Amino acid sequence: MKIKCSKVNLLNSLNIVSKAVSTKTTLPILECILIDVYADSIKLTANDLEIGIETILDGEVIEMGRIAIEAKLFNDIVRKLPNSEIFIETTPDYNTIIRCEKSKFVIPSKSGEDFTELPQIEKEKSIELSQFSLKEIIRQTIFSISDNENNKLMTGELFEVKDGVLQVVSLDGHRISLRNLALKGNASNVSVVVPGKTLNDLSKIITGGVDDMVTVYFTDRHILFEFENTIVVSRLLEGEYFKIVQMLSMDHKIKVRVNNRELFDCIDRASILMRESDKKPIVVSIKNDNRMYLKVDTMMGSMNEEIEITKDGEEIIIGFNPRFLTDVLKVIDDEDIFIYMRDAKSPCIIRDDAGTYIYVVLPVNINAGAY
Amino acid sequence: MKIKCSKVNLLNSLNIVSKAVSTKTTLPILECILIDVYADSIKLTANDLEIGIETILDGEVIEMGRIAIEAKLFNDIVRKLPNSEIFIETTPDYNTIIRCEKSKFVIPSKSGEDFTELPQIEKEKSIELSQFSLKEIIRQTIFSISDNENNKLMTGELFEVKDGVLQVVSLDGHRISLRNLALKGNASNVSVVVPGKTLNDLSKIITGGVDDMVTVYFTDRHILFEFENTIVVSRLLEGEYFKIVQMLSMDHKIKVRVNNRELFDCIDRASILMRESDKKPIVVSIKNDNRMYLKVDTMMGSMNEEIEITKDGEEIIIGFNPRFLTDVLKVIDDEDIFIYMRDAKSPCIIRDDAGTYIYVVLPVNINAGAY
Repeated sequence: MKIKCSKVNLLNSLNIVSKAVSTKTTLPILECILIDVYADSIKLTANDLEIGIETILDGEVIEMGRIAIEAKLFNDIVRKLPNSEIFIETTPDYNTIIRCEKSKFVIPSKSGEDFTELPQIEKEKSIELSQFSLKEIIRQTIFSISDNENNKLMTGELFEVKDGVLQVVSLDGHRISLRNLALKGNASNVSVVVPGKTLNDLSKIITGGVDDMVTVYFTDRHILFEFENTIVVSRLLEGEYFKIVQMLSMDHKIKVRVNNRELFDCIDRASILMRESDKKPIVVSIKNDNRMYLKVDTMMGSMNEEIEITKDGEEIIIGFNPRFLTDVLKVIDDEDIFIYMRDAKSPCIIRDDAGTYIYVVLPVNINAGAY
Repeated sequence: MKIKCSKVNLLNSLNIVSKAVSTKTTLPILECILIDVYADSIKLTANDLEIGIETILDGEVIEMGRIAIEAKLFNDIVRKLPNSEIFIETTPDYNTIIRCEKSKFVIPSKSGEDFTELPQIEKEKSIELSQFSLKEIIRQTIFSISDNENNKLMTGELFEVKDGVLQVVSLDGHRISLRNLALKGNASNVSVVVPGKTLNDLSKIITGGVDDMVTVYFTDRHILFEFENTIVVSRLLEGEYFKIVQMLSMDHKIKVRVNNRELFDCIDRASILMRESDKKPIVVSIKNDNRMYLKVDTMMGSMNEEIEITKDGEEIIIGFNPRFLTDVLKVIDDEDIFIYMRDAKSPCIIRDDAGTYIYVVLPVNINAGAY
């Protein structure tokens, strides 16, 4: 095998596939990147058996062949080479020679035959959306997946396509995030649960451009994202996702309109006085004087603040985990938000009129008499 | 006590004094910042008993008094407050109330009487230099102090003033860094050893401006840096510093001129193949063809590279700890550097003709026959 390419192209391709390199494994081959050189193309692949990424490297084929190179070392070397042409070739005893200007590295490598190929995906059901939309919809929902492996389905996100609308849902038992996105073109109806790690990795390698498209293919066991010279294949999580319809529809008694930024800053400040281990709530009192009073009282000190709001309905005193609120507020771009509540024990819903997003947050029990 | 100040001014002052707040201590008062409010000034102080910092806060005195506030919490709160006026006042039971716009924090604090004052320093012996020069001379020498507390003097730097020249020296048993700086104005002759931690902390709070001056005062046991509204006081390390004159003067047999950047990049690349635990050297061969050949061979792989040089004297094969060389190269601003060597076992010296800097690096034993 022998190829020639620019440092910039090689580094870009390595950055993409590296997301699928296993970091904790006892199988050394999973720590490698496979270079597959065909008559007319150079393909880089990484595969940690959960997620696999393939990308085509823009370079010149001098001799066909394949080799598996330890990813971290390969990355480190390429990053430090001069910004110039790089030649890569292999010796019969599985050494890789990397040359650039006057620099020559020789590193032991592995036979490409030991590498696990990506699964073949049938391209039947698909949707298409922009990289921008995909990156945004992941950012706006990924924070409320669970990291508790005991309930595997909670560690992923529901991707459901129905009548040309993609709905993405995540939940962790304390809160629900839901985003709807109208798709263009033909869209197959599907319902799958995608691992959170896949979505996090994908987010880092898609450019997020408004005009750069991604095609997403679905099978019963896999999801495949195809964009530019790259494909990302991931296993799906098996099982039926949670029914959430009932949680989203609620007769509210109070509706509050509040400036998103002001509320975020106030809760963010209050969080200084809280340690995760405390589990102390922020207490929100909504009064008939069209003000929201926020209060925190912990071992470290106390904070009081008020924010002007507009309100329909009764007064209420309700407690929240402050991070559950700030997580939601920071992914909503609207200047003002609407909060719907029923009583101090019922879930609180933040949603827009257009139905683009619905966020549900469970309150924390407080002794309302004390406030 | 009651004061009023802008968030920006308060945050700046807190950033300065925070460098002297103790982070690992069993004495809670050392984790505090003292606010001392006099009739006409507000003074912030922190003191970890090794280093103490005082700075004057630009603000309005409403009521005199003093209080000690836990530094981290105080910093966190101020950072998150709106960019507006801040009011700070104390209650008789040692609570501090911090108000900004509609936000009000109440945090438990400590009596200012428990705080350890900074030592009084006699301002007899002094020098003056720019913040830029002081920051540079620290950066150019601090990397070769030792972090081994067994030899306390090696954890500091020699500051020696003689005939209007400041000489700063650091050494760790494997290498020596020496910088000379001509001072303007009256300069007292002194010789003291300043703790490395003090110099690191100081570096972070001086602006580094060419026109901003620092006055440095010396006593037998303390050093004091005075600039703008701030003073930094530190204990000195006791004992007589190492005699290094003999190490700096050597009959060299080889003198090499090489491009600093090219040599740095090459050694930096080679370091990829080395782990700290390996203790493998980079092998440098200087040949009569006016080339320097660099070679590394480890478990991870091998690298070869050559650089064009000009040379006076014999050929040589010599081994180095690569980091000892890159540490030096990156603090020299000259485009080309001069390296002086005698044989594979004698220290190697990098210095300029003007005598602004001298760096000494001990070589690593290699089996020269193998190269």
